[in-house]
Amino acid sequence: MLYMGIDMGGTSTKAGIVEENGRILCKKSCETKIKQGYKTIFADMVFLAGQIIMDSGCNKEEIASVGIGFPGIIDPQTGEVPFCSNLNWPDRLPMARLLTGMMGKPVYVCNDAGAAALAEWKAGASKGSESSVMVTLGTGVGGGVILNGRIFTGSHGTATEFGHMITVEGGELCSCGNRGCWECYASATALSRAGRELCRKNPDTGLLKAVDQDPGKIEARTVIDLAKSGDRDCEALFERYVGHLSTGIINLINLYDPEVIVIGGGVSHAGTFLLDRLRKKVQSMLFFKSMPPTRIELAKLGNDAGIIGASMLGMR
Amino acid sequence: MLYMGIDMGGTSTKAGIVEENGRILCKKSCETKIKQGYKTIFADMVFLAGQIIMDSGCNKEEIASVGIGFPGIIDPQTGEVPFCSNLNWPDRLPMARLLTGMMGKPVYVCNDAGAAALAEWKAGASKGSESSVMVTLGTGVGGGVILNGRIFTGSHGTATEFGHMITVEGGELCSCGNRGCWECYASATALSRAGRELCRKNPDTGLLKAVDQDPGKIEARTVIDLAKSGDRDCEALFERYVGHLSTGIINLINLYDPEVIVIGGGVSHAGTFLLDRLRKKVQSMLFFKSMPPTRIELAKLGNDAGIIGASMLGMR
Repeated sequence: MLYMGIDMGGTSTKAGIVEENGRILCKKSCETKIKQGYKTIFADMVFLAGQIIMDSGCNKEEIASVGIGFPGIIDPQTGEVPFCSNLNWPDRLPMARLLTGMMGKPVYVCNDAGAAALAEWKAGASKGSESSVMVTLGTGVGGGVILNGRIFTGSHGTATEFGHMITVEGGELCSCGNRGCWECYASATALSRAGRELCRKNPDTGLLKAVDQDPGKIEARTVIDLAKSGDRDCEALFERYVGHLSTGIINLINLYDPEVIVIGGGVSHAGTFLLDRLRKKVQSMLFFKSMPPTRIELAKLGNDAGIIGASMLGMR
Repeated sequence: MLYMGIDMGGTSTKAGIVEENGRILCKKSCETKIKQGYKTIFADMVFLAGQIIMDSGCNKEEIASVGIGFPGIIDPQTGEVPFCSNLNWPDRLPMARLLTGMMGKPVYVCNDAGAAALAEWKAGASKGSESSVMVTLGTGVGGGVILNGRIFTGSHGTATEFGHMITVEGGELCSCGNRGCWECYASATALSRAGRELCRKNPDTGLLKAVDQDPGKIEARTVIDLAKSGDRDCEALFERYVGHLSTGIINLINLYDPEVIVIGGGVSHAGTFLLDRLRKKVQSMLFFKSMPPTRIELAKLGNDAGIIGASMLGMR
């Protein structure tokens, strides 16, 4: 059988037809017309699904099910969206049931970070492991946990909000209203912000030169590239970043004890430059130093993880 | 059928015969002769088991299985103790298999905090819930998590080490070598230490009078009792303690999203004086304020939780 995976994002929605082994046969995307409400978004999804079946040349009958990765909370029992204030959707929208009717196929919905974690567990960096935690270092810090081959959702679908784990009590003010959330220190945003602070304190720094004296141009990547090239200030900045990152990773190890932790998102493109430093720092902070340690790996599936993981929701 | 539960502690080992509903029919304890090694400890357990069967008047045949709560790490796959440096036991001791042979009954072993969490889930404060997290506020901060009716152990048996979750990066030095672990701020020990610090800074405080000018006599209970009676300094101290406690509870909610969090251990004897303040503070810090919140409850089974939970390991 084949499986369809749909990765709904804030700006675009991507769909793919996926084999059982995680290989994408064919994919396509469309704009997510956020402002036009859920009816338009769902209709566009159904149209996209039809298009991709046509393009791929397979029969609709070969598609066993459709999985959707959604950028928000999904009730794990019902497949409803309990609330979605930023999209202005009605409360308790029965997303899975509505789309099952519209698609004429069983439709499963999960959180997008959970979908990516499932993909990496089934076909990527944590393939074959007993349990896997995925951490995504992007605008914020997201995450997904795979236990017994399933996405761990918690009771209300709100588990694995890693970004809002407090690691620095009384620290930076977070958009959530609390202080010291991990994502204020470990996101790509946090790294670029640290770069801008550096420029304010030290106008002679190489970082400011690298962005033609415009701190607004600093991205996480800018800091990482300069650190890689041996710039002392950026090296120190990145070292401090890895320290903050390790604090949260140690917490995930002490709470979930996973076999593998997968690091994805923008910052993970730093590659071994990140991985070597992170592994070393985490190793030094382990509580059970004589136990087999959790492996830390870089994500392998990149932007396709969302489609692949969503498609796998129906594979059981 | 009946079930035997054994709660092995550092100073005493308690055993009980337990009904399916969690009621203890009969219990007995013996000294844990830590210094004499595992052979003596295991032989004493078998003797205790025999004694209690005799005392209770039931037949050995009525006992379906024996469960043991162990104060350390248990390999979730094999029932081995991977290492136990503080007891000087050999590495990878096959505890479950050895005792199965000695008892002539199926023997299951789990971590003691996990046993207490299981008991509260099956017969106590979180009975009937979809998932439950138990936090024990004592000398340190311990914990157990129940998912799908089972103790969540993680891959290597080292999950749910709540006490060593870092909540104050760069904070107090912990016995584990890291800084800012939750148990440096949220354990009973932390509360009594805060009391002693108060006395150093303010020799006129009522707390110092309450212990006849001897700060060495300050326990968590002393601070709590004075706070309850309206002592301003101790009220402020306890309020700060609840703040630190809430930080970790928020992290547990954001990571596990349990239906219930059960608070046990010495500090939980503060009762509603603790519970009211904790619920209020946690409510104000929730990330998803419009979702049904995790319930926070006080543990119900007290010191019997270890026996009851251990007995339940064989009930499936």
